[in-house]
Amino acid sequence: MNPVEIIVKKRNGGKLSEDEIKFFINGFLEGKIPDYQMSVFLMTVYFNGMDPDEMVALTRIMLYSGEVLDLSHIDGLKVDKHSTGGVGDKTSLVIAPIAAAAGVKVPMISGRGLGHTGGTLDKLEAIPGFRTDLSKNDFIKIVDKVGACLIGQTKEIAPADKKIYALRDVTGTVESIPLICASIMSKKLAEGINGLVLDVKTGNGAFMKTLNDSENLAVNLKSISESFRVKTVAYITDMNQPLGNYVGNWLEVYESVKILRNEVHNELTELCHLLAGTMIYLGGKSKDVDEGIHLSKELISNGKAYQKFLEIVESQSGDVSFIENLEKYPEPKYRIEVKSNRSGFISKIDSFLIGMLGIELGAGRMKYTDEIDPKAGFIFFKKVGDELKEGDLIAEIRTDKNNSDYFLSKFLNSIEITDLKPEPLPLVYKTI
Amino acid sequence: MNPVEIIVKKRNGGKLSEDEIKFFINGFLEGKIPDYQMSVFLMTVYFNGMDPDEMVALTRIMLYSGEVLDLSHIDGLKVDKHSTGGVGDKTSLVIAPIAAAAGVKVPMISGRGLGHTGGTLDKLEAIPGFRTDLSKNDFIKIVDKVGACLIGQTKEIAPADKKIYALRDVTGTVESIPLICASIMSKKLAEGINGLVLDVKTGNGAFMKTLNDSENLAVNLKSISESFRVKTVAYITDMNQPLGNYVGNWLEVYESVKILRNEVHNELTELCHLLAGTMIYLGGKSKDVDEGIHLSKELISNGKAYQKFLEIVESQSGDVSFIENLEKYPEPKYRIEVKSNRSGFISKIDSFLIGMLGIELGAGRMKYTDEIDPKAGFIFFKKVGDELKEGDLIAEIRTDKNNSDYFLSKFLNSIEITDLKPEPLPLVYKTI
Repeated sequence: MNPVEIIVKKRNGGKLSEDEIKFFINGFLEGKIPDYQMSVFLMTVYFNGMDPDEMVALTRIMLYSGEVLDLSHIDGLKVDKHSTGGVGDKTSLVIAPIAAAAGVKVPMISGRGLGHTGGTLDKLEAIPGFRTDLSKNDFIKIVDKVGACLIGQTKEIAPADKKIYALRDVTGTVESIPLICASIMSKKLAEGINGLVLDVKTGNGAFMKTLNDSENLAVNLKSISESFRVKTVAYITDMNQPLGNYVGNWLEVYESVKILRNEVHNELTELCHLLAGTMIYLGGKSKDVDEGIHLSKELISNGKAYQKFLEIVESQSGDVSFIENLEKYPEPKYRIEVKSNRSGFISKIDSFLIGMLGIELGAGRMKYTDEIDPKAGFIFFKKVGDELKEGDLIAEIRTDKNNSDYFLSKFLNSIEITDLKPEPLPLVYKTI
Repeated sequence: MNPVEIIVKKRNGGKLSEDEIKFFINGFLEGKIPDYQMSVFLMTVYFNGMDPDEMVALTRIMLYSGEVLDLSHIDGLKVDKHSTGGVGDKTSLVIAPIAAAAGVKVPMISGRGLGHTGGTLDKLEAIPGFRTDLSKNDFIKIVDKVGACLIGQTKEIAPADKKIYALRDVTGTVESIPLICASIMSKKLAEGINGLVLDVKTGNGAFMKTLNDSENLAVNLKSISESFRVKTVAYITDMNQPLGNYVGNWLEVYESVKILRNEVHNELTELCHLLAGTMIYLGGKSKDVDEGIHLSKELISNGKAYQKFLEIVESQSGDVSFIENLEKYPEPKYRIEVKSNRSGFISKIDSFLIGMLGIELGAGRMKYTDEIDPKAGFIFFKKVGDELKEGDLIAEIRTDKNNSDYFLSKFLNSIEITDLKPEPLPLVYKTI
């Protein structure tokens, strides 16, 4: 086989065989196919797409470029959730303990925040002592014993994805459905799971801005997942404003703990029950999603999910005293109050801008090597649709950086206030 | 500026500014932009094209990546011809001496054959002693004194094209109108010409197989050329069969000399008069193309074009005795006669397959480092539309390689014979 012929075939809209894709991807990993041919190949996929067979083949090749966990010796079904990322999306911290408390096994391999979006690992590491760099054996042991473990990607998992993503990042080939799908699914399937809940975000803070693109992504992710015999449910959920009221690493742990303690009931709580309920159903612990949701609520109200969270934190070397006593956590140097200069209704919160401002506060990063201040972030007292009077507190900005006026003006630029009450934002747009 | 942003802009169908294109091309030449970004950039151009402003900008940047000849001290207008390449296309050897004999200055920088197409340099070098690697100064002197000089590209001319072409060749980005146009025109414009005749081939042996693609190429080449104030005429001419009756390096010199001696009158002769007549017109030596054609025919019949050819050969160190006595040239080891096994009409000659078979005979090359046997090639006694009886001689294959049955069967596979007389092939499809 000849790399140029494969490039030209895809360039001309042809369908590649699994052998052709394998020749290309493995040749790239072995250093036989140079960067300049791989990058061009990725661009032809960007333009001409891939059909379902090609996507499955690409996923399989990337998956088996590395290790696939074998959790078959652990009793029970293994279920994970994957979110395409957003601002304030902390559901993993809530639903992993709920599902584990229900008896589902949750082997959760997560990522770090980059750009405007946050990452589960960074949030967990806001808990003093919490380790996400466990060995494979420790990970498997904790999943077996505790029921859930949340770690970062090891270098054994889908190395093809790592090498390909590095090239996509510098060649304008990130925004391609087949490449996104193969990247996500090769990592998720390496967890050795039986079930998967997909939370595909849509809106101004999501990777996919339109419902159409989000649906396209969701349909393809689910189809790939199921062709690997992983039972899958995909939801398209709102990311037109930050999820919940807290944004920032420790602040999101804080809100998650409050939900687990049954002290907060907002749209985030509702989404957590839907996702956890679906995990419970896919894990064979309820006859349908509704019963799963019911059980999820019970596990919150009876304190079992919260206890499971403490267990997880402890098993991953986290200091539970900070969870049991949230106020013990260090304070940021500055708390900037954002007050409304008019009456009206909040009609828009641009979560992308909020996420980008978060980076400036210290809550996020532009490159993977940037350091994060876990204390930095935002607390929203008002969200889209809420009524305001002049002088009402909209939010609090938390940071160690001394630049209040700038932060305040940037924050105000990312929200819109109107006279008329806006249509409420749906939480879930579609189930796939 | 950021290379990824420029890639994404073109990927999304945007129009690049001259500064953006310059940043990319010059960055690549300086080694600041890596191969993997350049190749992806080229693929976005393949998919999304370039508008006329972008093409002119790209051409200008590639042109001024190297030296542009200044021939202003030479009296008279300088005119060249460029053909997009085909099989048996030897017009340069005939028209350069005709135009020079008419008083036009012809600074002709040509290429080598690659794949199924031949190259003017290889044909000229079939003449013992003929040098195409003259210095710039010698080239300019001969153009001034003799009126025409035919050499190869020097490394000072459009180095960007050389480096970009090498990458296009291995990344499936050759077949892109803007890239082809900038590549051709950056080299032609470096000759310091005032006029240019474009011979854009169309058909089974041409780079562009369809009339539509050929026309698109011709229109863009002409438009770029004229935006550099070079008076330009483009013809779309037939390449659905080899041009003339001889294919192969020495055989093409042979046929050219026969035309210059007024001994051959075929469709090649006719095309040579059209191209030479147009060069004469663009060189200010006739009031229109028709008068140029008339003058061209006169320069053949009065022997002046042939004398000019001898002068050119001599000035470039070629041994004119081989021109004056064509039969002196070494003979190939094998002359394989191709006879018809049926009666009918030749309805098709696949010039691509003929060109590829020529490589196997030794007449062409797959890579630039392959050696060429100047004696190898084909003589066609019958062409498309000609009537045949069983046993009639169709062609003769000449080679030093001992593989007659194979060559014979491959040759017969590249032609078609039908009962009905086919429509004649036009010589010129369109003037642009």
